[in-house]
Amino acid sequence: MKAGQKPRPQLRIRRINLDTGRENVAVISRHSRALRPEVFRGFSRVELRSGAKSMLATLLITDDDSLVGAEDLGLAEPAFHRFASPSGSLVSVTPAKPPGSLDAVRQKILGRTLGAGDITAIINDIARFRYSDMEIAAFLVGSASFMTTAELLALTRAMADAGTHLRWEQAIVADKHCIGGIPGNRTSMIVVPIIAAHGLTIPKTSSRAITSPAGTADTMEVLARVDIGVGEMKEIVAACHGCLVWGGRVNLSPVDDILISVERPLGIDTREQMVASIMSKKLAAGSNHLLVDIPVGPAAKVKTAMEAMRLRKLFEFVGDQLGIAVEVVTTDGREPIGRGIGPVLEARDVMAVLSNDLDAPRDLRENSLRLAAHILEYDPEVRGGTGYARARKLLEGGAALRQMQKIIDAQGPSTCRTELGTLTVDIAADKDGVVESIDCLRLNRLARMAGAPIYKGAGILVLKKIGDRVERGEPLYRIYACEHSEFELVAAAANVRSGYRVDDRPPTSFAAR
Amino acid sequence: MKAGQKPRPQLRIRRINLDTGRENVAVISRHSRALRPEVFRGFSRVELRSGAKSMLATLLITDDDSLVGAEDLGLAEPAFHRFASPSGSLVSVTPAKPPGSLDAVRQKILGRTLGAGDITAIINDIARFRYSDMEIAAFLVGSASFMTTAELLALTRAMADAGTHLRWEQAIVADKHCIGGIPGNRTSMIVVPIIAAHGLTIPKTSSRAITSPAGTADTMEVLARVDIGVGEMKEIVAACHGCLVWGGRVNLSPVDDILISVERPLGIDTREQMVASIMSKKLAAGSNHLLVDIPVGPAAKVKTAMEAMRLRKLFEFVGDQLGIAVEVVTTDGREPIGRGIGPVLEARDVMAVLSNDLDAPRDLRENSLRLAAHILEYDPEVRGGTGYARARKLLEGGAALRQMQKIIDAQGPSTCRTELGTLTVDIAADKDGVVESIDCLRLNRLARMAGAPIYKGAGILVLKKIGDRVERGEPLYRIYACEHSEFELVAAAANVRSGYRVDDRPPTSFAAR
Repeated sequence: MKAGQKPRPQLRIRRINLDTGRENVAVISRHSRALRPEVFRGFSRVELRSGAKSMLATLLITDDDSLVGAEDLGLAEPAFHRFASPSGSLVSVTPAKPPGSLDAVRQKILGRTLGAGDITAIINDIARFRYSDMEIAAFLVGSASFMTTAELLALTRAMADAGTHLRWEQAIVADKHCIGGIPGNRTSMIVVPIIAAHGLTIPKTSSRAITSPAGTADTMEVLARVDIGVGEMKEIVAACHGCLVWGGRVNLSPVDDILISVERPLGIDTREQMVASIMSKKLAAGSNHLLVDIPVGPAAKVKTAMEAMRLRKLFEFVGDQLGIAVEVVTTDGREPIGRGIGPVLEARDVMAVLSNDLDAPRDLRENSLRLAAHILEYDPEVRGGTGYARARKLLEGGAALRQMQKIIDAQGPSTCRTELGTLTVDIAADKDGVVESIDCLRLNRLARMAGAPIYKGAGILVLKKIGDRVERGEPLYRIYACEHSEFELVAAAANVRSGYRVDDRPPTSFAAR
Repeated sequence: MKAGQKPRPQLRIRRINLDTGRENVAVISRHSRALRPEVFRGFSRVELRSGAKSMLATLLITDDDSLVGAEDLGLAEPAFHRFASPSGSLVSVTPAKPPGSLDAVRQKILGRTLGAGDITAIINDIARFRYSDMEIAAFLVGSASFMTTAELLALTRAMADAGTHLRWEQAIVADKHCIGGIPGNRTSMIVVPIIAAHGLTIPKTSSRAITSPAGTADTMEVLARVDIGVGEMKEIVAACHGCLVWGGRVNLSPVDDILISVERPLGIDTREQMVASIMSKKLAAGSNHLLVDIPVGPAAKVKTAMEAMRLRKLFEFVGDQLGIAVEVVTTDGREPIGRGIGPVLEARDVMAVLSNDLDAPRDLRENSLRLAAHILEYDPEVRGGTGYARARKLLEGGAALRQMQKIIDAQGPSTCRTELGTLTVDIAADKDGVVESIDCLRLNRLARMAGAPIYKGAGILVLKKIGDRVERGEPLYRIYACEHSEFELVAAAANVRSGYRVDDRPPTSFAAR
């Protein structure tokens, strides 16, 4: 088709102030003589070319000449930035062939097993924004029904290779990861300073919240800047043995972020996709020793010990194949950890533990020490079984707090507003009894309604935990909000359904139990 | 969450001249005080409410106050029309919960079998435009890996129930359907007048081309108006026993069109989805006798006799359950039928057959007679085995032509430009030999490049068929185009790859065969 083909007419790029999320969107005029949009009917995607540059985009059509004239090609913000040609420059537009790797997606949908080459091609096309959301959904759903361990491994490698690879000089580069879901579970911010104080390298990158009220990056941002690039991150780690930065800026496994943004609204979340997501980030981060924390509980991501074991085996398999020493621990995921939910309240819990405050939350402290103990024993110098004592010494002696301060100083001061919300309401027990269960999903949702993580000072202070005795009218938790509208909404919602179950049956005798 | 909840702030609807295809798209200002778009981060979808009306839409964000001000909610064209509230009217906007039926989609993705209630809920949500393209893709791909016959049946019923149901007085309401893919295969336009001339009722609705150079509706539109509503269609059928109208206006199984618009770009096309698509339309059309034509050939949708048989069984099963007497025939799908590809050229073939022209294409005539013969035998008055003779009599005696003219008069004159393209180029054989194969997909693609079906007069006139002897330089087919740009493009493309394979080996002796 190349021989004798006249070049397609060219259009002038025009920037359209429209944030279309991840997807590339182009807009042409229905009156565009150059394009004859009817020809594009039946094609949902177009290919833009300018010199050696090429980009796929979803095409929308307009009759509004003030938006896009007959000689223009409008590009919505993300597409405009990605194509990186100035307004007014010429571009040719043709109906896009679907990305070649979509054939492999179809094979997968038909139940075939894909080779590493196919998977790499798919991931590379996604990384280059050549897939529409619909096509990404097709890949994810097609892979959700089954994925072989070989496919999982290829997927993990391809995802890691599609972004930045960090390299470290040290023989041991430690990392920890919690699969999440439990509010207040900010152990990373205690484990990292303990490990770094010991002298092991732990360059921790964390995510911001997507559907939860706070990610570790959101909470750390209360104390220090986290939006830090690769070069600066390396300097900080060289100086402090560790860091607590936002992973987004470092561009580790960027396809993971794309896949997550489609998985979340669809609510698909398979074990294999979770493992590929986490392990691709760790591989890209250059970690060679990884501790994975799997909270188990009725409202946690993993509900039973059996599920946790299956997940553990997958982590171990992939870790072994990638040369990452993986250790998996399960923790109690029945209720929130610590007292705070939301960035400011969680940061207070963290600093209370590091400062050895007498009223620091015990569960957060214990979990952190236990996780740190495992990691410390990666150090050949640390004698088997002494990790816990070493962790405790570093914490109680103040070394961890000093190390945290050093890391905070190195990362620089936060520029966020970090005062606690001034609007508060206490949600009270509606009967006497004992707290029987706490719905973590409900508390997460209420904390988000209160404004977290957008308002760092919004969130929930947990006052009662499972097993605590409460009287009717006694507060179960306190909600903090920063703006009136959120405050009224969340107070009403929490009063309708608090997420707490209080058991008011008379205490059973030991014999009856 | 309802008790005590204050109503969300309201925005003013503003129409945005942007054709976003099927998907509902809403646009708000990043500065919208009423909404605080950050709260919507992590939600891709919003719910609009005004009185009892409610609609889901995908949310885009803009900084351009001239597009959408801080107090406005922009609605792209399809969303604006569907919400059907005037510009300036007030609407409240909240983060949308995903449609409830998406839970069933997740179950399907996990490999479970869905009940009829789940499937009906999914189809109803899709019909009400509550699914994003991504969510539709998830449903289709999740169903592609397996679908039980019970699920297939429930899907077919739910799709038929989501649109108009036609009802007919007659005991026998005949229909025919070709699963498509073969260029020039316009048998419906010959079968319908034969059957109607006989006196059987055959209210035929057809589709326009989506990815092919012509659908039956496009070709019929060369001869008559096809954009006809239910009431008028019933009058035409009462007067003529049959019609040839566009199905889109009649709103039969509208979800089918939505699903197809996602299936096509993804290239997923399972047997079950094909059967549900076709049978839902026939059920909604009120047909009780259906003849399905399955062309079999290397570039057809169905490649082997075995595949055709599997598909036949599915059609028969669903037909039996729905009370539609289904008969399936396979036809030769190795090469184009007739000579014309594209609306005007195909309409000429059809009229040549109906007029009993001596040079009318024999394959189109034979196929049509064979199909008509089957349908005629649905009539209890027609003795078994005599259908073909009856069909031939109706055709050769001129009754079919007169019936076609009656249908054309009843439907009214076409308003399209229907002259043949004036730009032509002949594509010639590059060696002496015998035509061994013709790539139907390639000819379809070239005819589309030439402008069909947008330009009714664009297309291809097939001059040589399989088995024909050709000399080097002798034309294989002629391309017709209406505009210069298409003409140059398609001529170049056809010269690079004609789609014909000519075998130049010396003819083998009978003995060697």
